Amino acid sequence: MVQEWNGFADGAWQKEINVRDFIQRNYTPYEGDESFLTGASDATKELWAKVMELSEEERKRGGVLDMDTKVISQILSHGPGYLDKEKEKIVGFQTDKPFKRALQPYGGIRMAVKACEENGYHVDPDIVDFFTKHRKTHNDGVFDAYTPEMRACRSSHIITGLPDAYGRGRIIGDYRRVALYGVDRLIEDKQRQKDGTRTIMYSDVTRQREELSEQIKALKELRELGEIYGFDISKPANNVKEAIQWLYFGYLAAIKEQNGAAMSLGRTSTFLDIYSERDLKNGTFTEEEIQEFVDHFIMKLRLVKFARTPEYNALFSGDPTWVTESIGGMGSDGRSMVTKMSFRYLHTLSNLGTAPEPNLTVLWSVKLPKNFKRYCAKTSIMSSSIQYENDDLMRVSHGDDYAIACCVSSMRVGKEMQFFGARANLAKCLLYAINGGVDEISGRQVGPKYRPVTSEYLEYGEVMERFDDMMKWLAQVYVNTLNIIHYMHDKYCYERIQMALHDKQVTRWFATGIAGLSVVADSLSAIKYAKVKVIRNEKGIAVDYKVEGDFPKYGNDDDRVDEIAYYVVKEFMHYIKGNHTYRGGIPTTSILTITSNVVYGKNTGSTPDGRKAGEAFAPGANPMHRRDSRGAVASLSSVSKLPFQDAQDGISNTFSIIPGALGKEDQVIINDISLDDLSFSMQPDCACMDTNLTDEREQER
Amino acid sequence: MVQEWNGFADGAWQKEINVRDFIQRNYTPYEGDESFLTGASDATKELWAKVMELSEEERKRGGVLDMDTKVISQILSHGPGYLDKEKEKIVGFQTDKPFKRALQPYGGIRMAVKACEENGYHVDPDIVDFFTKHRKTHNDGVFDAYTPEMRACRSSHIITGLPDAYGRGRIIGDYRRVALYGVDRLIEDKQRQKDGTRTIMYSDVTRQREELSEQIKALKELRELGEIYGFDISKPANNVKEAIQWLYFGYLAAIKEQNGAAMSLGRTSTFLDIYSERDLKNGTFTEEEIQEFVDHFIMKLRLVKFARTPEYNALFSGDPTWVTESIGGMGSDGRSMVTKMSFRYLHTLSNLGTAPEPNLTVLWSVKLPKNFKRYCAKTSIMSSSIQYENDDLMRVSHGDDYAIACCVSSMRVGKEMQFFGARANLAKCLLYAINGGVDEISGRQVGPKYRPVTSEYLEYGEVMERFDDMMKWLAQVYVNTLNIIHYMHDKYCYERIQMALHDKQVTRWFATGIAGLSVVADSLSAIKYAKVKVIRNEKGIAVDYKVEGDFPKYGNDDDRVDEIAYYVVKEFMHYIKGNHTYRGGIPTTSILTITSNVVYGKNTGSTPDGRKAGEAFAPGANPMHRRDSRGAVASLSSVSKLPFQDAQDGISNTFSIIPGALGKEDQVIINDISLDDLSFSMQPDCACMDTNLTDEREQER
Repeated sequence: MVQEWNGFADGAWQKEINVRDFIQRNYTPYEGDESFLTGASDATKELWAKVMELSEEERKRGGVLDMDTKVISQILSHGPGYLDKEKEKIVGFQTDKPFKRALQPYGGIRMAVKACEENGYHVDPDIVDFFTKHRKTHNDGVFDAYTPEMRACRSSHIITGLPDAYGRGRIIGDYRRVALYGVDRLIEDKQRQKDGTRTIMYSDVTRQREELSEQIKALKELRELGEIYGFDISKPANNVKEAIQWLYFGYLAAIKEQNGAAMSLGRTSTFLDIYSERDLKNGTFTEEEIQEFVDHFIMKLRLVKFARTPEYNALFSGDPTWVTESIGGMGSDGRSMVTKMSFRYLHTLSNLGTAPEPNLTVLWSVKLPKNFKRYCAKTSIMSSSIQYENDDLMRVSHGDDYAIACCVSSMRVGKEMQFFGARANLAKCLLYAINGGVDEISGRQVGPKYRPVTSEYLEYGEVMERFDDMMKWLAQVYVNTLNIIHYMHDKYCYERIQMALHDKQVTRWFATGIAGLSVVADSLSAIKYAKVKVIRNEKGIAVDYKVEGDFPKYGNDDDRVDEIAYYVVKEFMHYIKGNHTYRGGIPTTSILTITSNVVYGKNTGSTPDGRKAGEAFAPGANPMHRRDSRGAVASLSSVSKLPFQDAQDGISNTFSIIPGALGKEDQVIINDISLDDLSFSMQPDCACMDTNLTDEREQER
Repeated sequence: MVQEWNGFADGAWQKEINVRDFIQRNYTPYEGDESFLTGASDATKELWAKVMELSEEERKRGGVLDMDTKVISQILSHGPGYLDKEKEKIVGFQTDKPFKRALQPYGGIRMAVKACEENGYHVDPDIVDFFTKHRKTHNDGVFDAYTPEMRACRSSHIITGLPDAYGRGRIIGDYRRVALYGVDRLIEDKQRQKDGTRTIMYSDVTRQREELSEQIKALKELRELGEIYGFDISKPANNVKEAIQWLYFGYLAAIKEQNGAAMSLGRTSTFLDIYSERDLKNGTFTEEEIQEFVDHFIMKLRLVKFARTPEYNALFSGDPTWVTESIGGMGSDGRSMVTKMSFRYLHTLSNLGTAPEPNLTVLWSVKLPKNFKRYCAKTSIMSSSIQYENDDLMRVSHGDDYAIACCVSSMRVGKEMQFFGARANLAKCLLYAINGGVDEISGRQVGPKYRPVTSEYLEYGEVMERFDDMMKWLAQVYVNTLNIIHYMHDKYCYERIQMALHDKQVTRWFATGIAGLSVVADSLSAIKYAKVKVIRNEKGIAVDYKVEGDFPKYGNDDDRVDEIAYYVVKEFMHYIKGNHTYRGGIPTTSILTITSNVVYGKNTGSTPDGRKAGEAFAPGANPMHRRDSRGAVASLSSVSKLPFQDAQDGISNTFSIIPGALGKEDQVIINDISLDDLSFSMQPDCACMDTNLTDEREQER
């Protein structure tokens, strides 16, 4: 018996790496209210004041306080860093001090250099030289393999935000394993996995053996990272404080290695609650102490920082890191997975004040305990900082130990990962269908030279046939582009520690995404139900449309158009699935975007729905602005008809409820917290870089 | 019409990259004698005197005159280097001065560091740090993927000399293309190849696209390398001097990029002769001038140097680089391919004195012009520096534009390459068969736990059955080990410029090798025809053998044992072929080793043929020392019975003919130059590192 496990219920988790089994056998659902919660300790307040001070200083200096320009970030690249060593209960920074951004060039040296330059820092010329001459990056590899067609699609923004110059992110290490098992046991397990690879050295077996070796090396470094801070994390954690610390070291190692677009945390609160319950029972710690650990932990997560370019920051408010933590949800056995720790996590929004990070995400179920629902609502209203996702929907396919990466991407922790794939612009695809593959802005032949529509008025059948062909083409270029990206990311920027905290056999979701859905639906509806006249320029390219008459608009619970949206998602996914995917990735699609929809619109000409060239798209699966005239519920109902089976990576619908603007009925909905009856997730957009951060590289070549 | 091609006969070579077609349409066979040759020019003598001086100094300093410790070798890593700029007609060194060895860590940083350390130099700590932390090497990759079984086989020397810590070599770029087409045309061709890859991005397509990009980059760098020395090699060469210079730049780029075990030159003399014939006809250059260009070119090839460890140098005399140049041979149309340039190459052995490098190799045919044969014989006797290979044998499968890489590996230039694979020790394999996979020296279980032979006397049928099983096992571990090695070499140490000078579709020979053949044949013969008593140690391991009675010995033209040798080669190759090979490599085997046979013997226990533990093996396919009692021809006849079809990578037989020791009949053979009627190649061993240069790495781990 492992001494650190005293008091825990026995189970399969002892014999194998199986955190879910440990949780299910040991956690204590909490049905009570928030009255047990305690306020911020003096140390917490002082630490947070210091953070605020540094934040202020950072703002004053234009957004960056300090940057590494010589030391390349790795698990062991830095000595310990503290805010205030005496006061911090949970320790560890990405570099040797808070607010100092690390240098992470594996994804692309040019991006790393640019991020520094734009902030007035200069990467050591020796490092630039070395990475240019001897250490190829992900970005270099991708551009070496891209076809001219892929580059054209990228420059024309029909495929955008591709993770080809930065870390793909969207991989959640099961950081809880570090706490439950200690690093030595994890190394032992990985060694055993390596011993058990297939014996014929096909290239994929060789690759797997090399990756497992890298994972083992990363785990050994993780152990040393603990030592740097004075902890022996080779053994399991002894109490909740250690459990948080061990878990955080796992996460810290990941963010030291990877500057991914979304570096999410997982689903840790219920797991940690098991330790806190034991400690409370044994009198090891008081509630005040435990809340302090949580506060200090969350404080660390709020201080996760990456070196990024101004284009990146302009697109997203602040420094989005997508440290998403999934809270609550229901167990497969029907018990609520809400624990006291779920409350404590949310309570940091009071103790430390509101903040966008970590991205606290409640896995919402109609069956969640009423007290927790009310506390969520209350905290949401107070902080505007909670994200909700539909657990009842996702639990069906993902079980009860999944977590959200980024904003909507659900994956079983330590068992599934995602190849992040940004988005294809379907509105532009429709325009290509009309113009025979010619880009409506540049006039360049980007898509295949299919026959364009030449009639004065658009005919629904003709447009649909061409749109189908063009979607098929787009799906093929898109998937092949992603195949290159993920091949190169594995080759030049492999997520060692994150994958070390996964099982040997991992399910890989091959994520794709759709942008401009409502524009496409409304455009096709206009063509079908109104009359759309084509306005062509001197070269015969359709550049504008005149809509004569009215037509059903997406977002009003009108099946005539909602079915078009349904069809488009279904059909595009059908074509996506028809392609070979790297490493056996299982295709999924998401319908997201929250801020990047502006950029998409900027790069897309006028559309047959009456939207003018350059006008913003609606975010995610939202109806176009002001077109949902029948109220919030009708609008949400349109969204809810989209086929989740074909868009399992998530459908986002962004909407704000301004108290004064709500009718009585809407108010009731909020009060009864029953919005979750609608079959969709509500969340902000994901951290896609829907801009041409790397276009300068294309020009360079 | 390309101006530089004026006077050349038209052909397919103008429309496509096709050097063979150019040669066949343009070369002038030469049937005359050596009387046209001219001596060394004053400049040549002075330059060579300088080389001798520097060589002497190098010897005095223990074998190394200077080493790079900070600049990593790449095509463009150094400015120009000269012996004496005014006097040199052909220019270019690997670094910025002659005799300075380059730093080449891609194959393995530890080997690079060791090569420096052992010579009193120290690699810049920043470089070591960088390669340790950020730039993985071939060596690191291989050891990450090796299985414990592979490591055990390696440590026990049942598989040895593996290129897992150094460059595999054995790839010959078609350096003639640089001269004939100029770099720009080659880039254009590669770009077209890249445009024509398959369109679905399977991983092998992505890899190919990346490799083609790397090749294009390497060609661009090659063009710049010309500029560094003041030449515009973007266009074709105008005359023989430029042709030699362009061609040499191609080769120079290769040795700046790769420290391969064998960096061979190809088959260049007949190609260059076309230029010299044109120049002589046009009065562009005199014979004296042309010989001077050749002398200076060969001088450069003699100065190819790599940073290597003392273990490497101890095994081989001097600094073997295997700059093999293949001369002569017959065309598929029956014309001799001997030209005046063939004579000029050999003549450098007079003008510059004798030298082991470049490894001038005559592709011998019974049909070669008598004058050339006599000149070869004369030069051989004078210099002992010519290698002969059997063109009549190799031409059948390889056509008339193949060349020899290293010592015996034949490949069509620019169309075929080899994955070099060192050797398996079949004598040890036989001992494993007897001991049930237990190593006779270490007592470790290395092979599978098959039933050992337990009888007092060895029984032929029983031993053969076990030997068959053990060969099958060995073939499988061996091929899988090589699969890992070549995967990692492509990943971390890809031969960019060499592959840029190949066609798009390349045939890859997957080379394996056999050591200890005559020991195995004689051992099995002893078991079959005499009585072999087993002597076991206290642990029951067979450690010695007592042979009672006489038995037929390999090397005496005795079918009873020669057929055993034949069977073993055939059978082992059969098992080799039963395995998956990386990248569609076509399995071949060689029966080589000239000096490393000593090391093999040292690491192999006593064998049933009466050979004692530690005694040297015979080199290559040679009979064991002093066992060939029936004279040279009988000995050669035994070798000639081996199945070349199963050992197309070459069978070596080393023998020296001491004039006084030869009988009258032998003398006649030499005079009539008819030894070539025997169906085998005669050549020294290849540059395998049959030592444990990298064992320290295993210990490090």
